[in-house]
Amino acid sequence: MTKPIPIQHILTNQLPIPEKLLTSYNQLGLNETDLVVILQLYRFLYGHNNFPTPFELASILTIDEKECAKILRKLIQKNMLSIEQLENENKQLSEAYSLEPLWEKLYTTVEEKKDEQLEG
Amino acid sequence: MTKPIPIQHILTNQLPIPEKLLTSYNQLGLNETDLVVILQLYRFLYGHNNFPTPFELASILTIDEKECAKILRKLIQKNMLSIEQLENENKQLSEAYSLEPLWEKLYTTVEEKKDEQLEG
Amino acid sequence: MTKPIPIQHILTNQLPIPEKLLTSYNQLGLNETDLVVILQLYRFLYGHNNFPTPFELASILTIDEKECAKILRKLIQKNMLSIEQLENENKQLSEAYSLEPLWEKLYTTVEEKKDEQLEG
Amino acid sequence: MTKPIPIQHILTNQLPIPEKLLTSYNQLGLNETDLVVILQLYRFLYGHNNFPTPFELASILTIDEKECAKILRKLIQKNMLSIEQLENENKQLSEAYSLEPLWEKLYTTVEEKKDEQLEG
Repeated sequence: MTKPIPIQHILTNQLPIPEKLLTSYNQLGLNETDLVVILQLYRFLYGHNNFPTPFELASILTIDEKECAKILRKLIQKNMLSIEQLENENKQLSEAYSLEPLWEKLYTTVEEKKDEQLEG
Repeated sequence: MTKPIPIQHILTNQLPIPEKLLTSYNQLGLNETDLVVILQLYRFLYGHNNFPTPFELASILTIDEKECAKILRKLIQKNMLSIEQLENENKQLSEAYSLEPLWEKLYTTVEEKKDEQLEG
Repeated sequence: MTKPIPIQHILTNQLPIPEKLLTSYNQLGLNETDLVVILQLYRFLYGHNNFPTPFELASILTIDEKECAKILRKLIQKNMLSIEQLENENKQLSEAYSLEPLWEKLYTTVEEKKDEQLEG
Repeated sequence: MTKPIPIQHILTNQLPIPEKLLTSYNQLGLNETDLVVILQLYRFLYGHNNFPTPFELASILTIDEKECAKILRKLIQKNMLSIEQLENENKQLSEAYSLEPLWEKLYTTVEEKKDEQLEG
């Protein structure tokens, strides 16, 4: 009884993620819940929401807001996540998460394994 | 002291994943570990490895082979994962995982929410 | 003298496109300029701009606005592009391009070739 | 009368490409045919075919092999494409195309425009 799904909806719903993150989070001392928090953060950043609250993040996770805030703190302590001050054209300050420290860690220290990745 | 990372390595390391999976796994009764097992399976399928073993999957997860096999069984019982018989041109049979039941569930039952997704 | 490029900028700049379009536009009777117009349209739709003008499209192409409008008409005549009426919650009407006819053509008639594609 | 298209086929057919290439090729002195040759090259590199011949490239383009070879030479002269010597573990040499010079040009000189891109 369902009508066919527009292919366009499927196409524009694709989010490219760093495959290396999927293959290396374990080596970086992260577990599956940490990984999913990172992926959700990345999704928000990709969609131009630079500072999602733990409440916003937790609303789509199975863990609660408090547990989520704890993981964010852990990622900051592990130097994988940072908080940056942004200034807009009206000199207003705002805060933004940056996953840049994680990407640098990921693409420099784990670089030698790149050729094996697409093969799985 | 690290040499600059070739941009090409970063570019060709991107894996497009269904964003809807990230926003809806909770509603589908899945937790973060289930989600990561699905993402790893998807990664193998994308790379043309159609039937990774629980051992192969567990080698990149923090959970062990036994726990991984249990999640695969759960996904099959929940009708999100199926095992298909493939026949090659030499009439040899092989088995392949299919996530098609999950994609159908995801893009039909959760379709009404599509517009909110890119916004985060 | 250039400062290193943030990896995050490279990552969030990736746009997933249907590979089949790249391998099949010729068979569909399209040339390279037609293909690039489609890719630009797709980029606008992906970014939630549903009805870019020929002027907007031409500003990033080497062809002019008039030539661009001609290609859009050709795509509509070939039944690859359609214009749809959208109604928002305030009952206001607006027009939107849809590439759905192209995707259906692409993923049904050219489906049998799928296995050769990732290999190049 | 066509059977429904497996969603999995659509999903795994997505190729992430640098959006900046779509918005900046004109500024880099390239036309639509040049752009499509680059996208096809990129597709081959993504699929681990590092040195497609002009014949292989032309077979999916509307231009012929000779015209294609001419564009490849132009890209090399413009310092957007290079040919590298690779040595495998058995000390065998092979040649590979690299688009690294293009990516560096793209993500350094055109960097200031990044924020406008996702908006289209």
